[in-house]
This record gives sequence, C-alpha cells and structure tokens, in this order.
Amino acid sequence: VFPEMALPLWKNLLHTTKERILQQRRLSLYSVAHGYKEELIKKKLQQFAGGSINLSKEDNGIGILTLNNPKLMNAFTGTMMVELQERITELENWKDGKGLIVYGAGNTFCSGSDLNAVKEISNSQDGMNMCMFMQNTLTRLMRLPLISVALVQGKAFGGGAEFTTACDFRLMTPGSEIRFVHKHMGLVPGWGGGARLVRIVGSGAALQLLSGAARVDPEKALRLGFSEQTLSSSDESRALEEARAWLSQYIEGPVSVIQAVKKVVTAGRELPLEDALRTEKDIFGTVWGGPANLQALVRRPKHK
Amino acid sequence: VFPEMALPLWKNLLHTTKERILQQRRLSLYSVAHGYKEELIKKKLQQFAGGSINLSKEDNGIGILTLNNPKLMNAFTGTMMVELQERITELENWKDGKGLIVYGAGNTFCSGSDLNAVKEISNSQDGMNMCMFMQNTLTRLMRLPLISVALVQGKAFGGGAEFTTACDFRLMTPGSEIRFVHKHMGLVPGWGGGARLVRIVGSGAALQLLSGAARVDPEKALRLGFSEQTLSSSDESRALEEARAWLSQYIEGPVSVIQAVKKVVTAGRELPLEDALRTEKDIFGTVWGGPANLQALVRRPKHK
Amino acid sequence: VFPEMALPLWKNLLHTTKERILQQRRLSLYSVAHGYKEELIKKKLQQFAGGSINLSKEDNGIGILTLNNPKLMNAFTGTMMVELQERITELENWKDGKGLIVYGAGNTFCSGSDLNAVKEISNSQDGMNMCMFMQNTLTRLMRLPLISVALVQGKAFGGGAEFTTACDFRLMTPGSEIRFVHKHMGLVPGWGGGARLVRIVGSGAALQLLSGAARVDPEKALRLGFSEQTLSSSDESRALEEARAWLSQYIEGPVSVIQAVKKVVTAGRELPLEDALRTEKDIFGTVWGGPANLQALVRRPKHK
Repeated sequence: VFPEMALPLWKNLLHTTKERILQQRRLSLYSVAHGYKEELIKKKLQQFAGGSINLSKEDNGIGILTLNNPKLMNAFTGTMMVELQERITELENWKDGKGLIVYGAGNTFCSGSDLNAVKEISNSQDGMNMCMFMQNTLTRLMRLPLISVALVQGKAFGGGAEFTTACDFRLMTPGSEIRFVHKHMGLVPGWGGGARLVRIVGSGAALQLLSGAARVDPEKALRLGFSEQTLSSSDESRALEEARAWLSQYIEGPVSVIQAVKKVVTAGRELPLEDALRTEKDIFGTVWGGPANLQALVRRPKHK
Repeated sequence: VFPEMALPLWKNLLHTTKERILQQRRLSLYSVAHGYKEELIKKKLQQFAGGSINLSKEDNGIGILTLNNPKLMNAFTGTMMVELQERITELENWKDGKGLIVYGAGNTFCSGSDLNAVKEISNSQDGMNMCMFMQNTLTRLMRLPLISVALVQGKAFGGGAEFTTACDFRLMTPGSEIRFVHKHMGLVPGWGGGARLVRIVGSGAALQLLSGAARVDPEKALRLGFSEQTLSSSDESRALEEARAWLSQYIEGPVSVIQAVKKVVTAGRELPLEDALRTEKDIFGTVWGGPANLQALVRRPKHK
Repeated sequence: VFPEMALPLWKNLLHTTKERILQQRRLSLYSVAHGYKEELIKKKLQQFAGGSINLSKEDNGIGILTLNNPKLMNAFTGTMMVELQERITELENWKDGKGLIVYGAGNTFCSGSDLNAVKEISNSQDGMNMCMFMQNTLTRLMRLPLISVALVQGKAFGGGAEFTTACDFRLMTPGSEIRFVHKHMGLVPGWGGGARLVRIVGSGAALQLLSGAARVDPEKALRLGFSEQTLSSSDESRALEEARAWLSQYIEGPVSVIQAVKKVVTAGRELPLEDALRTEKDIFGTVWGGPANLQALVRRPKHK
C-alpha cells in the first residue's frame, strides 16, 4: 500500500553478533580505559561459588529472573555476580522480550553480598573492581529495553536494596522491607544504588534513607514513590502472579513498540533535555512507518 | 539618583532583527548540521492544508493561542504546523508578553496529527523531518519567556498530549482527559513529549503513561502533579476566564521581571546545576539596577 | 587480621593545606577565568559593616551556624558575607563534623541583603561580583560533607529564602514563612536560589513560588516537599533542641561514613547519571576496607 515504507528505519534494531558485543560495551560504564580489568575480577569472583541466577523466558514476553541462594537470604556470591552478567546478556539478546520480573528464592529478595566472598576481596583494588563489575551489569539491566519490576518479598538489604533501584518499578508484599544498611557495615552504596535512588525518590529522601539506614516498609515506600503498589499476598507463587498481572497492563502490544517506549523513557531519565529530545526523535524513527504503525494506519483512516 | 546605573545591563534584552533570527536558531534543536532541511519539509507540509493556529495578544500581557481545526478535533494539518511556527516567532518578539494560554477550538484540546497528512509523509525521511520541525517549534514554545498554560478541555490525545508538556502548567476542565495513545498507533512520542513528560511526572509515571496508553482524567493528573488544578467549568469562555484568573497571580508586575523569572526557571530545569547557577547570575544581571529594581529601592529604604 | 587492608584508600580523604586550598577552588563556581575578582569585591563588601556570622562546633559533630544581625532581621551586610565565607572554610576543614544547623538570631531566619549595602553596589559590575561571591560560598555550603538543616523561624525572605535552599533540609517552626519576594524588588534570585529550588520542589512549583512571590507557611512547605517537618515550638532554644534531635538520627555512626553518604548524594543530585555512578564508586573506595568497615566485618561474620 505504501511502497516508500519498504525501507524501514526499524531495520537498525537488528544487530549482528559483532554489533551486539559493541553495543554491550557501549551500554557498560567501565572499560580498560578506566583501569578496569574485567577478566581478572571475573576470575577472582569465580573462586567464591554458591547459589545461582536463573532466568526463564515466558511466551507472554515476560522474563523471570530469580536470585537463588536461599540459605544466605540470596546474598550474592562471586559466581552469582558472574551469572547475573550472563543472564543480562541473554536478556539484551531476547528479541521477543517486553517485561522482566526479578525476585528472590525462599520468600525473600536479597541481603546484598556474601560476606565470605567480601572478606576475601576486601583489599581496595579488588573491591573497586567488584564494584565496577556490578555497576556495569546493573547499568545494563537498567537500560534493558524491557519494563522491569523488582518483586520485593521479605528483605532487600544493602546490595539487595541497591539492586531494586536498577528496575523501573518496585512492588512489595505485605511485611517486606527495603533497607540501605550500608552505614552499619561502615559502607556506602557502591553498586550505583545511591545515584539511582536520588533519581527515584529525590535527593532529600535519598539522603535520609542512606544516612538513617531506616527500614522502608510497603507503606513508607508507597509514600516516597519508591514502590508502585503493595501486593495482597506474601505467598511466592501468588505474589508472582500478581506482579505478572500488574506488569501485563504495560506490555500489551507489539514488541517493537514496547521496547521503543522503554528506550524513550531511558533517554529521558539519563540524558540532558536536548540529548533526550534528539534520542526520542531517533527512536521515533525506528517505529514510524514500521509494521505496527502501518497496520494501525490501515485500521484507523481518520486521525490519531 | 544612582548615576552609575546609567549603563544598565538589561540593555542586552533588546535585540536587533538579525540578533533575533540568530537567537531563534540558538533556541532551536535542529539545523542543517543535523541533516535537517527546514525549507523542504515546510514545502511538503504546506501541501496538507486545513485549520489554523490563531493568536490574540491581550493588553494584560496574556497571549491566547488557539488550535483551530474543530472538525478533526483540532488535529494538526501540515499548514497548522507551519502556522504554529509563525505564531511562536510572533510570541518570541512580543515585548509586552508575560503569559500564554493554549486551548483548542470546539471544547476539545487536540487529537494529534491529521492522519491524512501523516499517511502521505509516512516514509521515514519525511517523518523524521516533520518530527524535527515540531520539536524545534515546541522547544521554542517551552523556552518562551512567558508563563504558559495548556487549558485542556475534552481530549488531548497523542501529539495533543505531547503538546501540553511543552507548557509550564496544565489546567483541566471536568470530564477532560489526556492520553498518550501512541502505542495504539504503533508509535512512541516524537514531538519531545516523552523527554518532557519524564521531567514533569518522573520517569516511573512517564513509563506507565506511555506504555499503558492510559486515560489521565483530571483527578489522576492532579495526583501525578501533571495538572495544577481542575477548573470548575467545562464551558469554553468560562474555562478561559478561569485560566486567565489563575495565570494572573503569576504575571503581576513588570514585564522585564516576569520574563526574567521564567528564564531562571527554564535554565534551572534544562541545565546541569553549575550551568544553571551561572545562567541565573547572568539573568540576575539583566534586572539588577534596572528600572523596576531602582523604583523598588526608592520605595523601600530599609532592607529587602 | 586482613593485612592487605594496610593500604587504605581512605587515606585520600586527608588533605594538606595546599590541597585544601585547591579543593576549595574546585568546589567554587567562579574564578578569574569568569572575570571574577574576589579580592576586589571582598574589599568593597568590607566597607558595609554590621552583624556577624557565628559558628560553634559541638562535640556531637553538629555545627551551629548563626546569622546574627537581629536589628535588621539578620539581613546580610557586606562583612557578614565575608564572614560567611570564612565560616564555610572552617566547616570544610572540620574533620569531626557530621551535621550542620543554620538559624537566625532573634527568632527570625534572614531577610536577605542589607539594602544600605545593596544601594551602594547597585551598579552592575559590583552587583554581579557580589552575586558570584555569594554563589561561590553557598555552593560550597551545599557541597559540605555535612548533613545540613535550615531551621526556619520567623521569616526567610529574598536572599534568606535562597539561603535555605543551600541546605539539605528545611525545618520550620509554627508561624514561620519562607518567601521569594524578589519580584517585589524588581529582581530575580541571584544567589543560586532559583536553580536549587527547581531541584527541590520541581520546576512547576518553583515557577509558581518565584513568579507569585507567595508566602510559604509550614503546611504548604510540607505539601511541596520543601520542608521535612514542622517543629512543635517557636521558642529558639527549644526549636534548636528539636532540630538537633531530628538531625541526630541521620548522623549516628563514624564520621568517615556519614561524610561519604553525603558525598554520594551530592554527586547523585549534581551530576549526570554516568558521572554520578563513577563518583559513587570512587567514594565507595574511600570506605571499603576502612576502619569502620573492618570493625563491622569482624562483628558480623555472616553476610551483610
């Protein structure tokens, strides 16, 4: 019908493997130029084994990412950090993905780092490298073209609290709590949770949460705009079902459009206004005249 | 009284015609350097005629801008896009302007683009150029040194919803709605509405509004901080009167000062903090020792 | 126990005098490069004497800064501007500091500039230099590694209202008010209050407060997120006691950690996301493996 649309701009959404690797580098924060040696820290992390990060990709376009180390309240071992990176790469390459739910095994979210591993890498060079490794991964999670939800049951402490800030939304079950306990460990956030928290709740509330190490229950989280909703059930499978239903209202529609929406918002929240506007225009170009747009134009002949 | 004030810094608020043209270029986002060819897209847009954009400048310093294409719910034809640009230029050059109210004819705001025009320019090159044309115009509207209000009656859909985000404030009449329906057209915002919405309601709410294409009624808009107030009347002339009264409280005082206030806030919301501080200092320099300041100092001899 | 921690990264928190001077320049906005001549404006300011800025440093790590010129509602004379700069330098060098309370003598906060001084420097060059002088000082106040509170009793007008925005938090006593009265003086903020206000309450509310010059009472301030709490007493010593108690919950713990938390939030609110993340990583490096962290690891052998 519209012959000039035979040259779709959305073609540039497709990547060869090489292009994908390049893009992952672009989406990451640290490279060799920052004195960051990924292979060295990965080798070190792999010495501290335990737990797993599991991913299942559902037909409805929702990925379910499980933090799985229940005997340590899903604390991150070294191998879990490495596995998380692999799962994020898998999600970046998931062509049919539209949404993501992250939750913890055993009815609790995540208690941060496994201190047995932490102690072994408590020299400053290793600490900084671990920090850059996790910031790279969580920055890539934040920038996934998927609408992401942290489903918080039980406790999200320290690095676990930081993890929730890398998702677009947080849903909490009754009785759950998020707590930036870093102060009590003589620490501050290092996985990017400070910078991201400021953007979610404002700098005043962020300063209070970090310096007070206060318990954030579902009511307080709602008040702060830190959580979107308190789910009705604390039961794992029911809570997951509720989270899936909540997310479904935002991922209905073609993959290309949902992913483009997320990209527009990512640009809007990360970039200065002029850069965000230019990026929005580029993303618009990937859907304008694309298949979903053409079908809609055929359906509705009058005006949008 | 104060002879050294004979060299007022506020002199630099006056522009020659050439300076004005240069400034409009500076206030725009896209130029030839971005591969943007304004004259070409203008010629194309002028082929799709219908409706008009009307401007009346009242003695109280309030401009009234009307989106006027009621048989298509004020959808933007090509000539309306071109006329909008001309009206914004007129407002940039209005020395006595302090405020602006934008509303739609026939008790409804705007339903976006006229799809008859859209279909004809649905090849990607034209689409991108139309997008840059509208982003340039709406960015200049946003940066006008006038306090601007979108008066939303009826429906503000798609591009109409995006338009409201280029104003400083939104006032809604009972029963009206704002809706980012882009998803249903297989699209995302491209007139800058995504980037601006993130700044108004936060990235979480913006992601929900765009990915859910949900109806925003006056109550929800108030809750989100997207609207300032729900007016009491849906009648056009009464609603306009209410909007005028609401705006009046913010534009009382000398033109130079009201325009300077808007410029300070524009810098504050667009620029990184250090740049915003330096710009604030420069704008301060345009009123310090100026006529309004001198009169106030004579009136109040003690302290501010 | 952990021998590799003998090389603590937190050593870089210690500065020699020369490094301190360099850092103050880095923390300031204006230097000779901006046409700013600090020594000239300081000499001029010192001609307008009156009042004082007092600082007492308490053993609990809280500094109390008093704006003291009660016969002019604590309006800033020239010598007070110079003294404020000296007190901020003192606070930057305070190794044991964790918090700061700013209040005004005589049960009122501050009415801005002493107009007697203002009149004498109302030529544009002096005005701009005074503006840069105060912006430099208030920017350094904002960036202090201390959690800061403006305790607002009575009135905070004009420059006094701007001053409150340089603190992390505002607490108001019953009957007090904050008011950006600049418009009535034919002015706009010039001490950075506009740029900072946009970041605290959002650009819409900031535009309303500045263009309307409206009275902000404690209730309205709470609603806007401009104040954290309304204290129960208007009595100076009781209000100070309440402010101290409020602040205490956020400064409990080691100095190095509290200061690091404030630095993380400062980076988060001032910098683009990627820069904020990198800075967070660097600040993390100053506490990781530091004394407070090591002690906590010994105390809790399991996981954070």
